[in-house]
Amino acid sequence: MEMEFSSRVQQKVPLSKIATNDGHGEISQYFDGWKAYDSDPYHPTRNPNGVIQMGLAENQLCFDLIQEWVLEHPEASICTAEGANNFMEIAIYQDYHGLQEFRNAVARFMEKVRGDRVRFDPNRIVMSGGATGACETLAFCLADRGDAFLVPTPYYPAYDRDLCWRTGVQLFPIICDSSNDFKVTRKSMEEAYQKAQESNIRVKGFLLNNPSNPLGTVLDREVLKEIVTFINDKNIHLISDEIYSATVFDQPDFVSISEIIEEDGVRCNRDLIHIVYSLSKDLGFPGFRVGIVYSYNDSVMSCARKMSSFGLISTQTQHFVKSILSDEKFIEKFISKSSERLAKRHSFFTGGLSQVGIGTLKSNAGLYFWMDLRKLLREPTVEAETELWRIIINEVKLNVSPGSSFHCSEPGWFRVCVANMDDECAKVALRRIHKFVLLYSKGITEPTTPKNHCRSRKLQLSLSFRRLDERMMIMSPHSPMASPLVRAT
Amino acid sequence: MEMEFSSRVQQKVPLSKIATNDGHGEISQYFDGWKAYDSDPYHPTRNPNGVIQMGLAENQLCFDLIQEWVLEHPEASICTAEGANNFMEIAIYQDYHGLQEFRNAVARFMEKVRGDRVRFDPNRIVMSGGATGACETLAFCLADRGDAFLVPTPYYPAYDRDLCWRTGVQLFPIICDSSNDFKVTRKSMEEAYQKAQESNIRVKGFLLNNPSNPLGTVLDREVLKEIVTFINDKNIHLISDEIYSATVFDQPDFVSISEIIEEDGVRCNRDLIHIVYSLSKDLGFPGFRVGIVYSYNDSVMSCARKMSSFGLISTQTQHFVKSILSDEKFIEKFISKSSERLAKRHSFFTGGLSQVGIGTLKSNAGLYFWMDLRKLLREPTVEAETELWRIIINEVKLNVSPGSSFHCSEPGWFRVCVANMDDECAKVALRRIHKFVLLYSKGITEPTTPKNHCRSRKLQLSLSFRRLDERMMIMSPHSPMASPLVRAT
Repeated sequence: MEMEFSSRVQQKVPLSKIATNDGHGEISQYFDGWKAYDSDPYHPTRNPNGVIQMGLAENQLCFDLIQEWVLEHPEASICTAEGANNFMEIAIYQDYHGLQEFRNAVARFMEKVRGDRVRFDPNRIVMSGGATGACETLAFCLADRGDAFLVPTPYYPAYDRDLCWRTGVQLFPIICDSSNDFKVTRKSMEEAYQKAQESNIRVKGFLLNNPSNPLGTVLDREVLKEIVTFINDKNIHLISDEIYSATVFDQPDFVSISEIIEEDGVRCNRDLIHIVYSLSKDLGFPGFRVGIVYSYNDSVMSCARKMSSFGLISTQTQHFVKSILSDEKFIEKFISKSSERLAKRHSFFTGGLSQVGIGTLKSNAGLYFWMDLRKLLREPTVEAETELWRIIINEVKLNVSPGSSFHCSEPGWFRVCVANMDDECAKVALRRIHKFVLLYSKGITEPTTPKNHCRSRKLQLSLSFRRLDERMMIMSPHSPMASPLVRAT
Repeated sequence: MEMEFSSRVQQKVPLSKIATNDGHGEISQYFDGWKAYDSDPYHPTRNPNGVIQMGLAENQLCFDLIQEWVLEHPEASICTAEGANNFMEIAIYQDYHGLQEFRNAVARFMEKVRGDRVRFDPNRIVMSGGATGACETLAFCLADRGDAFLVPTPYYPAYDRDLCWRTGVQLFPIICDSSNDFKVTRKSMEEAYQKAQESNIRVKGFLLNNPSNPLGTVLDREVLKEIVTFINDKNIHLISDEIYSATVFDQPDFVSISEIIEEDGVRCNRDLIHIVYSLSKDLGFPGFRVGIVYSYNDSVMSCARKMSSFGLISTQTQHFVKSILSDEKFIEKFISKSSERLAKRHSFFTGGLSQVGIGTLKSNAGLYFWMDLRKLLREPTVEAETELWRIIINEVKLNVSPGSSFHCSEPGWFRVCVANMDDECAKVALRRIHKFVLLYSKGITEPTTPKNHCRSRKLQLSLSFRRLDERMMIMSPHSPMASPLVRAT
């Protein structure tokens, strides 16, 4: 109905081109999966056959620690007897510089996360409405309509909305693939740059996401140096989105771009370097909309600060965040516990999957892993990937995100989020994957006419799922039953 | 130093056109005045000769009520023992629809403020980063680069930033003046529309601010109907910025555009109607960044909601706001007390000014009044207004805002904000104005050569200010001394 209405209106009173194009990026399987979850969400008792949300990179593993801290620190809030005296002062503060103590605390936290190997100037901390706002702010500051940023694939789907929709800037892919674990190389960067130039597209920057979403990997020093050399050679900007910098749960350590540019022997014009940060992932507060732009370029910093008027952080939240971040002892404990729990959850899934012969890209960061289902594809195409994804979401009832929605060049990869659920839900999810792999692998080997291949397989899956249910319910992910059974098929 | 750096950078690595233009609007006396205040802020004991901030439309008059409420309602916050159980649920909520209870409470509050004469659908409440974000969102939705919105003068200076800077949309003035108390007429609307068309500018909408900032007036039913007829005749959008709708302290009542379009006999395509709202003024929480877009157009609502990703309201704040707004009894008391205190403050200043022969536009809303200093101008030009303004800010040490920064067509008007200070500060401010008017009127009558006119008057003022200080310190604003003295000059 909305569409009907909308087309009538557009004829009568035109809206803007931006309002009527698809630059918001919601016409995508990434968001379709969210909608499928929203219409039938899993609940252990009320809707045990519902869709489990594994498409949301959310960190729910350490809220017990936060809650405990909150109760011990009523002065951290302006809505308690201990903090209410600050209510007016905080509620009316609307300066786009942000509370000085907030900036101090965020800068200090960013240093801590980088092992105190670099310093951040609190006066360069610029606020934005989440990383979403930070990315758009930088796009507005650095590039004109039609200009492009290079970005290695696969990349976070909403970058298209964040950097492009309202700015008119483009993202131009640097093609990476599994042959070298999706690492960006000088060759692939040059190729992309060349291709853009041939299409008469002006390249204004490079967008990096480190640690990577969806890969869950951290970039190593050599690759980072190569990128810094490249952007200096081309004289283009570098946006380093480091929103998962404290969400690293194994070796190797995270290395920030801020460390690379301070290394001996690295030649870099710092005016080209800009960092995006947020507390949505590392502290798990996506609702609080704490986004940060940190630019080494004075003009960009000054312009971004003016733009922050459109996405300031609530001062109630600034006040709370500065309080909790200033408790360095607590923060150290939090990061360490968070890593520990993430590592456990990660290995629960990746270990469980390897038992049924499913591989994942080796990773040590993020709230997800990159699952390799290439061998389950009917053929190595995006269509086949979409087919498989539909089965996973509609039959297996798991909202995982297909690689194509991350602009992955190789069909068959899926991002699976693991930190937005409790242990019980994780067990159910893994059980479903196990069951699916068992049945699906079996389905592939059975004879069907090519035409009916997909449909019959789907039907068979639906029936088999129910029959297998009882047997699977008693099968733990670490049960010896799983692996031999599958290896046999 | 920053500028030096910036020009060097711009040569080496160009930033965007947006980053390097002046669309942020900060090169203005409106912001110069803020800077003057920032560098020398008044404090009753620490800096009694500092600049008093009368350029900030901020409501500080009722925080005692809010604070009292906060202490009685610890469950309203997720950072108290009573509310901490909701911490995780609230902190991770990042849906751009916003918390349902928040939307319900805001819609209900908007109804209450309009005397329950209209209904608002909570599902049409779209979040934005303050009214700043709401205005930009609507501009992005409704118009393309180069398109224009008509706007009656004088108007809020930051509209230029909010609606134009990053969107490329223009504001095209509808000239209003004091001959009819700055009321917009059909004739003035038609003239502006015509003029835009002659300049080949496509008019896409009309931007209305009701109650008006800077005038402090509410629009009457007839004018509102005239505007609705006009925008329907031209088939253009109407943005009604109603952020001061609960900040009305005298008759006549505020009438919202939402009431007009429901009146019998009013022909209106509701797809053209969009309201901007915020809690920055009416509740006095500018730091909390609660901005609202309410559109009657489904396509605009749907697009604005997607855009709200760039300026979502912190869920910590959504949770608090829904709690306090849901206490209808408290809200009623708050609005009534707030009106009462504003009325008192308003008449303290306007009454005090009339004692020294200074007029103000009759008004009943907002956190300011519109002061008529036309008779103090050397000549009726913007230059003379700026000259006078410099004296007021540098010598009288009051940061009031000159009419030219509001695009006023008539030199000599100044906006004076009165609700961002306590009673003591208000007394000091009024005393300074009294003293200034006394001395300045005297200065004007004294013979000086035209060339040295301004300089000598300034010098004389500085000297006289100090000498008159003791006498004035004992003169209350309601003292009989003031008025006869001035009337004599």
